[in-house]
Amino acid sequence: MNDGWKSADYRAEHFLWSVEDRVATVTLNRPERKNPLTFESYAELRDLFRRLSYADDCRAVVFTGAGGNFCSGGDVHDIIAPLTKMTMPELMRFTRMTGDLVKAMRACPQPIVAAVEGACAGAGAIIAMASDIRFASANAKTAFLFTRVGLAGCDMGACAILPRIIGHGRASELLYTGRSMSAEEGAAWGFFNRITEAPLNDAKAFARDLANGPAFAHSVTKNQLNMEWNMSLEQALEAEAQAQAICMQTKDFERAYVAFASKQKPVFEGD
Amino acid sequence: MNDGWKSADYRAEHFLWSVEDRVATVTLNRPERKNPLTFESYAELRDLFRRLSYADDCRAVVFTGAGGNFCSGGDVHDIIAPLTKMTMPELMRFTRMTGDLVKAMRACPQPIVAAVEGACAGAGAIIAMASDIRFASANAKTAFLFTRVGLAGCDMGACAILPRIIGHGRASELLYTGRSMSAEEGAAWGFFNRITEAPLNDAKAFARDLANGPAFAHSVTKNQLNMEWNMSLEQALEAEAQAQAICMQTKDFERAYVAFASKQKPVFEGD
Amino acid sequence: MNDGWKSADYRAEHFLWSVEDRVATVTLNRPERKNPLTFESYAELRDLFRRLSYADDCRAVVFTGAGGNFCSGGDVHDIIAPLTKMTMPELMRFTRMTGDLVKAMRACPQPIVAAVEGACAGAGAIIAMASDIRFASANAKTAFLFTRVGLAGCDMGACAILPRIIGHGRASELLYTGRSMSAEEGAAWGFFNRITEAPLNDAKAFARDLANGPAFAHSVTKNQLNMEWNMSLEQALEAEAQAQAICMQTKDFERAYVAFASKQKPVFEGD
Repeated sequence: MNDGWKSADYRAEHFLWSVEDRVATVTLNRPERKNPLTFESYAELRDLFRRLSYADDCRAVVFTGAGGNFCSGGDVHDIIAPLTKMTMPELMRFTRMTGDLVKAMRACPQPIVAAVEGACAGAGAIIAMASDIRFASANAKTAFLFTRVGLAGCDMGACAILPRIIGHGRASELLYTGRSMSAEEGAAWGFFNRITEAPLNDAKAFARDLANGPAFAHSVTKNQLNMEWNMSLEQALEAEAQAQAICMQTKDFERAYVAFASKQKPVFEGD
Repeated sequence: MNDGWKSADYRAEHFLWSVEDRVATVTLNRPERKNPLTFESYAELRDLFRRLSYADDCRAVVFTGAGGNFCSGGDVHDIIAPLTKMTMPELMRFTRMTGDLVKAMRACPQPIVAAVEGACAGAGAIIAMASDIRFASANAKTAFLFTRVGLAGCDMGACAILPRIIGHGRASELLYTGRSMSAEEGAAWGFFNRITEAPLNDAKAFARDLANGPAFAHSVTKNQLNMEWNMSLEQALEAEAQAQAICMQTKDFERAYVAFASKQKPVFEGD
Repeated sequence: MNDGWKSADYRAEHFLWSVEDRVATVTLNRPERKNPLTFESYAELRDLFRRLSYADDCRAVVFTGAGGNFCSGGDVHDIIAPLTKMTMPELMRFTRMTGDLVKAMRACPQPIVAAVEGACAGAGAIIAMASDIRFASANAKTAFLFTRVGLAGCDMGACAILPRIIGHGRASELLYTGRSMSAEEGAAWGFFNRITEAPLNDAKAFARDLANGPAFAHSVTKNQLNMEWNMSLEQALEAEAQAQAICMQTKDFERAYVAFASKQKPVFEGD
């Protein structure tokens, strides 16, 4: 029931990609510039996350950066310079492409765990925000710094998503000023789920646990978190009645019951 | 203007029910199993909360559990076992029934105050979440543990409601992992309004204050919190202009003014 | 491209108004009564914030109160007494007028920074809530006290906006009880962006920084925070793609790039 595409076979051009224990890891890898994005890496990430919808060998994704930084955002020379010369249709092609990366990250069935160290700025902050779970080192500096380059804070979903994570007042300050949110603030405000000395290791362990869990049910959780974003309470309750009934016909649900009844730990297979 | 049903006359079959000072108390009462729910108790709770819409002798509800625990959720033997054998229409009947309990809790005009000690798991965590106010003892352990039985986190409105209480990042972690939220985390994150040594006593006192307040206006507050869930800002402002104008024609509004003008404490009567 | 109206020429009747460095300051000024609102000051504020949409000499607004208090809300004698005698059409005219003030504060392109000391109650708490950024002194007491006068918590958008700032559980408690939120709670919960010894000075400095920033882009940020309130994720991402593409054709975006390329600090002009 998929097109035969295997995530483990994928060879990335513009970042590192590996799959182990059904956990994929994306590593942005231009450490000398704190891992900026380029037109090419945006496009490849968008296409890859779209493809993950059909990959049955991958059940969770870790997103990180090489060399002690997460991502410094859109490269000033490779991206901002050309943007200043573009026509409106060209600009729309770019802003829709970057928005499509966020759409693809939210739409893929795998939960995404961001492992953040050091710089996490601009589109880097967005990638962390668009992930499901975020672990940080104590030195993480997260800045939605679009205003610093003369732009608005409404980049790649920030005005919709960030307020739902940290509240409207705090999101407004970060988006109007572009200032860095410290790791400590991020943890206190609910942006980071954990501050840890080893974000990547911990993110991988967390992702492995998810991969070993009821993966289909996890994908339903993710989908409902997206879908119920702006439903009424009544609609959300009916949507969950349907979604959970679907999960009650999975084998993993039965496996859990059988294991429980025989006082064993369930082994989930994701179907 | 009601059908004559009195909440104080109600005799509960599957839990304890009492009404004092116009405050009703629901006590789940199978303490030897940490107060699990059954098909029958779900259905009775749903019907009872629906009926409360027409009860003019009850102005606030306290929800608690007997024996030092709140509620351990759906009973493994009584509920999970049969669910693993059901057809899809039967499953939908169940998931809609549990969702209907949340709908009824949100739709009844009385604010609901949850008094949480010890285990607060699965549907128990949902009942706390669907309440208006939550008090906890320091030993409260709240777990949205659906994933542990192979299900999704989208149970009884959790993917819609929990993110609005504690933020999307923290809600995601709890729903993907099923891990316990400590009382301390719950208070820091805005899930619990207060940690207290006597949650039930304090919840009753809080509910009594609400019952002695402008009860009709409180019911309007509750209704608007529900209704404005996914309205635009413009719609919400018009909806509140209408709702508050209605309250300005209540006698309680006049009572408050008269009391204030004569430097007395207002005595509200709820009409 | 405006009608020639200059904010600096405005002479306020019911409060103080000044414009300096393109930052306007509204000061409620009946300090002997803690700066209550009247029918006339509500109406004038509504009209003034509506006018600000067309003022190109004002890029940010500071909202404060004289004499160590922010605002005590609707005056009991001037407002509440007459309300108790009004017909429904008259009441609707009032509640829509107060709601229209919030609509105008959210709709004007200038970010609003509230500087809060002492009493911040009723409509005063709403004005703080409807601002974009909030600074407080340690003695600020913020109370959504509508319930104390027999009314519902749904006043001027509180049931929609407050939960998005501090979460549904905390908002519910404040709206059902009317109790004061301390400055410390407000900062911990994300209502206040900062507690400071000099809220007005700091708010003015913050507003000046905004005014010296990319003002058009800031107005787009504000508009998107409003517009995406109840959009789906997909709609929000498309809306931001459009809004940011618009900002990429501003001169400020180019100015930032040119400054960056020559290692200078950009000087924004707001167009």
